[in-house]
Amino acid sequence: MNSFFQTVYKSSLTLLTDFYQLTMAYGYWKSGISERESVFHLYFRKNPFNSGFTLNSGLELAIDYLNQFRFTDDDLAYLRTIKGADDLVLFEEEFITYLKNMSFSCNVDAIPEGTVVFPYEPLLRISGPLLQCQLLETPLLNIINFHSLISTKAARVVSVAGPSQVLEFGLRRAQGVDGGLSASRAAFIGGCVATSNTLAGKIFGIPVRGTHSHSWVMAFDSEIESFFAFARAMPNNTIFLVDTYNSLEGVKKAIEVANWLKTQGKKMGGIRLDSGDLAYLSIEARKLLDKAGYPDAVIVASNDLDENVIASLKEQGAQIAVWGVGTQLVTAFDQPALGAVYKISAIKSSTGIWEHRIKLSEQSMKISTPGILQVRRFFNKSLFEADMIYDILNSDKLKSSMIIDPEDFTRFCKIPKNCDYEDLLVPVYRDGKLVYSLPKLSEIRERTFIQLRRLHASIRRLMNPHHYPAGLEKKLHDYKLNLIYKFKKKDLIDQGTPDLSIDM
Amino acid sequence: MNSFFQTVYKSSLTLLTDFYQLTMAYGYWKSGISERESVFHLYFRKNPFNSGFTLNSGLELAIDYLNQFRFTDDDLAYLRTIKGADDLVLFEEEFITYLKNMSFSCNVDAIPEGTVVFPYEPLLRISGPLLQCQLLETPLLNIINFHSLISTKAARVVSVAGPSQVLEFGLRRAQGVDGGLSASRAAFIGGCVATSNTLAGKIFGIPVRGTHSHSWVMAFDSEIESFFAFARAMPNNTIFLVDTYNSLEGVKKAIEVANWLKTQGKKMGGIRLDSGDLAYLSIEARKLLDKAGYPDAVIVASNDLDENVIASLKEQGAQIAVWGVGTQLVTAFDQPALGAVYKISAIKSSTGIWEHRIKLSEQSMKISTPGILQVRRFFNKSLFEADMIYDILNSDKLKSSMIIDPEDFTRFCKIPKNCDYEDLLVPVYRDGKLVYSLPKLSEIRERTFIQLRRLHASIRRLMNPHHYPAGLEKKLHDYKLNLIYKFKKKDLIDQGTPDLSIDM
Repeated sequence: MNSFFQTVYKSSLTLLTDFYQLTMAYGYWKSGISERESVFHLYFRKNPFNSGFTLNSGLELAIDYLNQFRFTDDDLAYLRTIKGADDLVLFEEEFITYLKNMSFSCNVDAIPEGTVVFPYEPLLRISGPLLQCQLLETPLLNIINFHSLISTKAARVVSVAGPSQVLEFGLRRAQGVDGGLSASRAAFIGGCVATSNTLAGKIFGIPVRGTHSHSWVMAFDSEIESFFAFARAMPNNTIFLVDTYNSLEGVKKAIEVANWLKTQGKKMGGIRLDSGDLAYLSIEARKLLDKAGYPDAVIVASNDLDENVIASLKEQGAQIAVWGVGTQLVTAFDQPALGAVYKISAIKSSTGIWEHRIKLSEQSMKISTPGILQVRRFFNKSLFEADMIYDILNSDKLKSSMIIDPEDFTRFCKIPKNCDYEDLLVPVYRDGKLVYSLPKLSEIRERTFIQLRRLHASIRRLMNPHHYPAGLEKKLHDYKLNLIYKFKKKDLIDQGTPDLSIDM
Repeated sequence: MNSFFQTVYKSSLTLLTDFYQLTMAYGYWKSGISERESVFHLYFRKNPFNSGFTLNSGLELAIDYLNQFRFTDDDLAYLRTIKGADDLVLFEEEFITYLKNMSFSCNVDAIPEGTVVFPYEPLLRISGPLLQCQLLETPLLNIINFHSLISTKAARVVSVAGPSQVLEFGLRRAQGVDGGLSASRAAFIGGCVATSNTLAGKIFGIPVRGTHSHSWVMAFDSEIESFFAFARAMPNNTIFLVDTYNSLEGVKKAIEVANWLKTQGKKMGGIRLDSGDLAYLSIEARKLLDKAGYPDAVIVASNDLDENVIASLKEQGAQIAVWGVGTQLVTAFDQPALGAVYKISAIKSSTGIWEHRIKLSEQSMKISTPGILQVRRFFNKSLFEADMIYDILNSDKLKSSMIIDPEDFTRFCKIPKNCDYEDLLVPVYRDGKLVYSLPKLSEIRERTFIQLRRLHASIRRLMNPHHYPAGLEKKLHDYKLNLIYKFKKKDLIDQGTPDLSIDM
């Protein structure tokens, strides 16, 4: 694709960030540490939709964002207008000049799009000047959170629908213009075959599909007249929407038109059902179509579908070859946000030594992991076996090590012997220069299918999936635990230190 | 504001529409009815969040969209590439030329932003050439659906939080770039006082707020050092995030810094809690701050807040003056789509007579209303009394008429006598020319407050709100019923016609 943001957006998106990133940037600059080298990771804490996996996506858009990351004169003029509680200008002019001269110089490592990932695994690692890393928190979260959420939803829907096809139909209910555009791309990565969103077709090259709506039927004096008019206009693109007045009567009219199309040497594509009992209606419609000699005419269904409704309809024997999925998919209706976070985990001291950082919390789930992290995936010939999050400064002898679940220390396992492995985070930027060769959208989609096949079926299933083994490498776990103890020292002295260490 | 789409988007957004709108456009053109005058309405069927009302918004963005509505050479070049099932080009070149020459010429009537509205009330009425009305379905739905959804959510959150303030903090979890930008505007209309989204501040002029995150604290060797550094950098913008290691210990450190600020003639703004038991922690923090002599220091709270959590925290006596609401607000987490639809309701015959149109369905909720509709709101001095949806071609003696709920015919009422009234849909475009004077964002927000005050408290309440009387004017109801009967004639002959007429 062309650059999405550069194609679609005119405005600089550098200010697409929380204001506190700018006040912190100012503070770092005032404190003389804006250039201090630091490491941040972007990760989520829980698979969405009670899924057993998450499908990572959005990297290309993140790259696109980073490529345009500089303050324009417009941006700076706006920042000059912002005032503090004393009604005086908040940012010194020298800081504005600093921003003006800022040029992206971070290292970025990322997990490629179309990869299955698990909680606490860094999807992105950004290292470089503290100020730049900080400013990037919000836009990177915005992009990766939404994209991965929708790709995951799509992967679930597609896996249930298979071998029938899934079309993404959601633009009208999407959350804004880009909520539609990004969702179309993310849904395609997750396995949808096409979108209704024409602009997404133009920008991303995703196949577009569509025939007609109820308005078409209602614009004519009768349903049959409208079907004939459509068939005459577009004989090679005929899926008739049959439920404007009465679905099965509509099917009979579609058959009349199919008979006429046949005399013209053309074939009716099929019919679409958009309301009512889709199981019953599709079975009856199938019978009518077959009896009339149209076994190849497809039945498309739409109407608030999601993976659970599709699973149920299939169980009931619904005769549906193509599923049009809209609202539920593009908004990820049952969980419309992924909730990934972006946390600092190390910073170089003024003497050049890496210092690890941890965020504690009253909620243990919100404790961050210190270090400079990588994810190692172990696999056998056919399946992924386990993922290990480890600190790259402390990575000797990992292959035979143990992993411990970051949320539940009682869940740990040893990496099976003789596994192959691969490190998932790959270099994307070095000193602000793009070093990553972007795959095509079709290649990303293909990667999705291959990745999903390598997950055990029990992890892919919709309901109560099996837990894929992914956790912290033991040394990292122990180190994190020690840091927690250190910070909670006062409590520990009062209550006695618990022993949570795990022997191998 | 400047034009949002023209400021932000470079790409033409004319193709931001479902592909079937284009195939229908082609079909209308081929059938020689593309210029046939027709009427479409945009409406929703159910208030979101089990709310008693919906707050209408997004009109300015819809206008912005309509102002740029023309096919660029780029758009047309893309349409030329699209192929049908026979692998031949789908659209004739003459049609492409028709699109190239198309110039927006519709009439648009709309309910102003910041108005409370109810199910089945048309928020927009578009009339004009069938082809143009059809193409606009998807983008108008996209814009109005999302905007009204978020304004409604914000109005609920703000009404519960009052008199304390609500900040919108959602960008990082928003559904894409525009899911963030539009949400910030919509949330401001709904009553939020500010946003964290800096670009929304720049584009819409919404106040921006922010101080620092956990990363700030973690970038320093200790929490207290980080607070001092922030206070030195930005003494007039000091809300200290205290929960990086231990919230109440953090409050004590903030107080130390406040003491130092005092010696500098400055005042600490307050503290922010972002995890743990917000009721307990805010009460304890309040005690610490008061005891230290900082009764004016505000306590800001964040962490997955929504109207229900806020209501519960307030009930528990939480001492929170400012609520930072993010994910739940900008994604409308508990119902992330409004589900408005856009239906044709009348079309002029070739002889110039308006013909009404109705869409039936196996689901009665999905039956559309025929006619050219307006909404009349009746009110007394202090409160809104009832809304009547009527056909403007049949509008004599409405003041004393009866309204009938479109979903439940047993729910009907007479309009109280001596009410004043106002028609809600106002002219926005005439023959493609903008005739509406756009209010400022602050005026829209003010309108929200005034409108909400005019709803009875029982309709505004969060849980099980009272049902506001809004329905079809009796003649329109009867007419719709007759059309339904007419289309279902065959069933009626079999089963006997039910008598559902209502006497006044």
